[in-house]
Amino acid sequence: MSDIKVGIIMGSSSDLPIMQAAADVLNELGISFELDIVSAHRTPEKMFEYAKNAHIKGLQVIIAGAGGAAHLPGMVASLTPLPVIGVPVKSSNSIDGWDSLLSIVQMPNGVPVATVAVNAAQNAGILAAQIISCNNKTMLEKLIAFKEALKQKVNKASDDLKK
Amino acid sequence: MSDIKVGIIMGSSSDLPIMQAAADVLNELGISFELDIVSAHRTPEKMFEYAKNAHIKGLQVIIAGAGGAAHLPGMVASLTPLPVIGVPVKSSNSIDGWDSLLSIVQMPNGVPVATVAVNAAQNAGILAAQIISCNNKTMLEKLIAFKEALKQKVNKASDDLKK
Amino acid sequence: MSDIKVGIIMGSSSDLPIMQAAADVLNELGISFELDIVSAHRTPEKMFEYAKNAHIKGLQVIIAGAGGAAHLPGMVASLTPLPVIGVPVKSSNSIDGWDSLLSIVQMPNGVPVATVAVNAAQNAGILAAQIISCNNKTMLEKLIAFKEALKQKVNKASDDLKK
Amino acid sequence: MSDIKVGIIMGSSSDLPIMQAAADVLNELGISFELDIVSAHRTPEKMFEYAKNAHIKGLQVIIAGAGGAAHLPGMVASLTPLPVIGVPVKSSNSIDGWDSLLSIVQMPNGVPVATVAVNAAQNAGILAAQIISCNNKTMLEKLIAFKEALKQKVNKASDDLKK
Amino acid sequence: MSDIKVGIIMGSSSDLPIMQAAADVLNELGISFELDIVSAHRTPEKMFEYAKNAHIKGLQVIIAGAGGAAHLPGMVASLTPLPVIGVPVKSSNSIDGWDSLLSIVQMPNGVPVATVAVNAAQNAGILAAQIISCNNKTMLEKLIAFKEALKQKVNKASDDLKK
Amino acid sequence: MSDIKVGIIMGSSSDLPIMQAAADVLNELGISFELDIVSAHRTPEKMFEYAKNAHIKGLQVIIAGAGGAAHLPGMVASLTPLPVIGVPVKSSNSIDGWDSLLSIVQMPNGVPVATVAVNAAQNAGILAAQIISCNNKTMLEKLIAFKEALKQKVNKASDDLKK
Amino acid sequence: MSDIKVGIIMGSSSDLPIMQAAADVLNELGISFELDIVSAHRTPEKMFEYAKNAHIKGLQVIIAGAGGAAHLPGMVASLTPLPVIGVPVKSSNSIDGWDSLLSIVQMPNGVPVATVAVNAAQNAGILAAQIISCNNKTMLEKLIAFKEALKQKVNKASDDLKK
Amino acid sequence: MSDIKVGIIMGSSSDLPIMQAAADVLNELGISFELDIVSAHRTPEKMFEYAKNAHIKGLQVIIAGAGGAAHLPGMVASLTPLPVIGVPVKSSNSIDGWDSLLSIVQMPNGVPVATVAVNAAQNAGILAAQIISCNNKTMLEKLIAFKEALKQKVNKASDDLKK
Repeated sequence: MSDIKVGIIMGSSSDLPIMQAAADVLNELGISFELDIVSAHRTPEKMFEYAKNAHIKGLQVIIAGAGGAAHLPGMVASLTPLPVIGVPVKSSNSIDGWDSLLSIVQMPNGVPVATVAVNAAQNAGILAAQIISCNNKTMLEKLIAFKEALKQKVNKASDDLKK
Repeated sequence: MSDIKVGIIMGSSSDLPIMQAAADVLNELGISFELDIVSAHRTPEKMFEYAKNAHIKGLQVIIAGAGGAAHLPGMVASLTPLPVIGVPVKSSNSIDGWDSLLSIVQMPNGVPVATVAVNAAQNAGILAAQIISCNNKTMLEKLIAFKEALKQKVNKASDDLKK
Repeated sequence: MSDIKVGIIMGSSSDLPIMQAAADVLNELGISFELDIVSAHRTPEKMFEYAKNAHIKGLQVIIAGAGGAAHLPGMVASLTPLPVIGVPVKSSNSIDGWDSLLSIVQMPNGVPVATVAVNAAQNAGILAAQIISCNNKTMLEKLIAFKEALKQKVNKASDDLKK
Repeated sequence: MSDIKVGIIMGSSSDLPIMQAAADVLNELGISFELDIVSAHRTPEKMFEYAKNAHIKGLQVIIAGAGGAAHLPGMVASLTPLPVIGVPVKSSNSIDGWDSLLSIVQMPNGVPVATVAVNAAQNAGILAAQIISCNNKTMLEKLIAFKEALKQKVNKASDDLKK
Repeated sequence: MSDIKVGIIMGSSSDLPIMQAAADVLNELGISFELDIVSAHRTPEKMFEYAKNAHIKGLQVIIAGAGGAAHLPGMVASLTPLPVIGVPVKSSNSIDGWDSLLSIVQMPNGVPVATVAVNAAQNAGILAAQIISCNNKTMLEKLIAFKEALKQKVNKASDDLKK
Repeated sequence: MSDIKVGIIMGSSSDLPIMQAAADVLNELGISFELDIVSAHRTPEKMFEYAKNAHIKGLQVIIAGAGGAAHLPGMVASLTPLPVIGVPVKSSNSIDGWDSLLSIVQMPNGVPVATVAVNAAQNAGILAAQIISCNNKTMLEKLIAFKEALKQKVNKASDDLKK
Repeated sequence: MSDIKVGIIMGSSSDLPIMQAAADVLNELGISFELDIVSAHRTPEKMFEYAKNAHIKGLQVIIAGAGGAAHLPGMVASLTPLPVIGVPVKSSNSIDGWDSLLSIVQMPNGVPVATVAVNAAQNAGILAAQIISCNNKTMLEKLIAFKEALKQKVNKASDDLKK
Repeated sequence: MSDIKVGIIMGSSSDLPIMQAAADVLNELGISFELDIVSAHRTPEKMFEYAKNAHIKGLQVIIAGAGGAAHLPGMVASLTPLPVIGVPVKSSNSIDGWDSLLSIVQMPNGVPVATVAVNAAQNAGILAAQIISCNNKTMLEKLIAFKEALKQKVNKASDDLKK
């Protein structure tokens, strides 16, 4: 079994500039991941395979980003027992992100998608880390340090403002 | 090959009171159909099988109704070359039908869903008949008569009002 | 009777940059079509004539695009027994496409419009082809090949990403 | 030429409970009117005739009410030189009145519809009276008295509250 | 009494680029008008005076444009017996025009504002002309010619497209 | 000068069941107030007088509630130097409160309205008390006690749940 | 350290009928949890304590439900390194759930909340179980069985329909 | 005790270009203020301290601006007896300001936030001055003069237009 813990997938290569932020924060936190383009609507069989095998090959969380009538996160969630994090992407064909958001978050009973804010791929990465830290003290420490760094950044902005 | 021309599917038995209107109008127009419950999120494999085999077993149109993050119409459309008609259902877990509508209509390039109004299953049935009438003069005549009947109903209401 | 199968109409020449994508995909699929500007609000008589004669002159599907209070698709649908595909155009006078979408999709019982996503003229063309393929095996094969090409494009993007 | 000044039309007899308020206020103000059911989608020819003949038979204003993808006010406006007042009806198939409102108010350049609030048929009647009062001092006096009565009603409510 | 028939007012000089279209179409139709800046919120007394005197000084219609929490059209309507046409302006402080539209159109019973589309000042001018044409055959003829010109423009665009 | 500190006004007696909560909380906090019906649209002169005189007769805050195209809070704010608190009322003619909220909160630069949540008249009363407590230690102490009581209520609910 | 793994909190006892579904599904899956009322706005200190101590006392996930301007999930997320699941509650003071949803999901970079659908407390419970199953094979098996049971329920509905 | 009367805080330095307008108008009105960056989500402890101490150190009003799931104004309001003015910022991660507005204005009973329009920091400053003027005749006179200046500016624009 590979040591890759997080699968990051997106419906189109045009989602990559947004979704890259998930990869970046996982890198920063030292979590191994894989990145792929899997379209619910154009490569449904690949999507099926990906979702069905994810927990078997050792993934612990899946991050899925999509825009418009965004079905990728929900369909993957229907096929895997793993937690799925959905990133609504405000793509060029989206109505200001409303369609992406509602298509991802409003899942029926039995099949949750852990939805983050529109375009918030960095937060998807952090949430994946939080999930992995469930039984992982080291990761929990890293997340506490990450929060501390956020705080320092705001404090520095506050100091700069006062100068 | 069966002579069933339209497949009507819905995500949950709770959608049946709405979706029945599609069956009723197809009955009225003498078009054979089948009716089933196929959930994109709870029975994804059945959905896959259904969509993949639809044109092989002779269906010519699929009507799919769903509510909330409604993925059934779009996922079926991704798996079949047949035209798919989507009915956004204003189910109990829907935000006034907005989520159902946007999840169905805002499909990406390459994979259309022919979307009708929220809860408009009767119109889905009529649209299916219009599609079937493509090379079918008899059906076209029936549709012209159907339109004429709508007109008479309004005219009668107008006459009643004037009395 | 002409062999033109699809009529593409739009309310204004300013809709042409969007609606051209319907023409392009029909060309790609080898389906003959005609293209015209027909305004429900500025040329209502022409619209009436167009819609009334469409099935008589042999059209099998009408694609109608319009923006704002978009009445063209619905009014044409009220006047023809043919299936009408509506394209909500996000024109300069539209409120982010919401008015265009709702004016087209929310048709009353008896008069459906097969609505596609905002600005999704390519999908309107594909849906027209699906409708025409109803009794046309060759067209069905072309659509299956079209879907396969979509898949290959995503797979190539996936391969490129992994490199 | 008849002395009927206002035509009140609506898309369906189910709109009558709302639209009656327009008739009531015209009665109150002593303005003759006619009331009919004219559906843009189910009786398009009747709608055409109605709109084309309205100014010829002496009408001065048309009030049109409709719900959902409400095309009646806008289509009538496209066919008559008379001012058309649109009443967005929150019908059972409407998404909380949003579709009715946007379908009526968001008309393109050249073809205005004077839109009132959702379900505000009384205001449509008052607006019709204001339009007719254009060269009619007696009607203007009646409207001034009508406004005075509104004021007295509020003042009475204020007095009641203070008691 | 002056022969000015239409008063065009707006809440801010920043609304002028939008509201100019009302003046232009009135010029084109040969209707005399006056143009002023009257702010409901910053010059309430001037607004009161303006609205109270409008019918006394001979105006027949008032066109009022405003953005955001747009109170000018409704407040003027509360103070005059004349018909008031409201133009929702999508100003820089507006939420995509939604606030402007709802603040103008959703008037309570007794006090209508004839609302046109967001930014549709040209249509406000046309509607004013339609109101004035109420007892004015010459103006009615001009409006019929105006409609004919719209039609010719679309027909020309149609011819150009076919070339 | 009277010792009445808060004026509570509303556009219609039908707003009273909602607006009563403002009066109740002011009573609870021992702040004297007056209650009246003042309609921006039906009694504009009374509204003018009310707003112009408010600070002269000694009021320190005005609470104004209205629904639909809710102009009362903003118009009063345009006429008084006092702080005005606006309560968007979800009245029967409102579109789910959206029109009430946007008509009140989206005021232009120079004329703020302190807007609270839809139907939140109690919060309007509390905010009035907070404003009055500006230079009033006793009132500040009362507000601290009020907050403490809220906390105790939640703590009791928590205790009840655990039993 | 206690063996309680999930903390379920809500802003008000009126949220309990919705939030109970999270407790029920955790019971069904054999996951120990605690249930409390913690209000971000009325008991901010208790909320602080709760969130700060959650990972120290051994909780692995927090489920927080709230309505209107729902700050509880986001504030708890700002104070804990644990994953926080947010349930937007469509409470009586909410605008159809839109405010609850947006207040919970639209979190800034650095502080994710795993948002589920409006009122979807059952899905919050399932998501909590998925997170806990991260390094827990037994729980993963339970979730696979849970999914299987969903499927059987749909299949039974399908069988019933066909009878 | 310092003579600083208003605290202006914001969630991020990126909100400063918007929030500066509050500071500018307070400067213009001669009201002393302090400006700081305090993030509800990234520096919750600092936010707690700030809010808890505000009335103790002599502040009379707090202005808080934030975007997206904007919790800063509401959380500060939960922790202070002072009036809190909320400025919804249309930040880059906001859905056109809707999330910012609803997260701030839709506060539960007991904890009001005085919300101004999206990005309306100048109005927040004016409202703060109005609150401070509660028992301060000089400030009231300044506000009356401020209103007069607004009026002169509109009158000048009106004069310029007429030239």
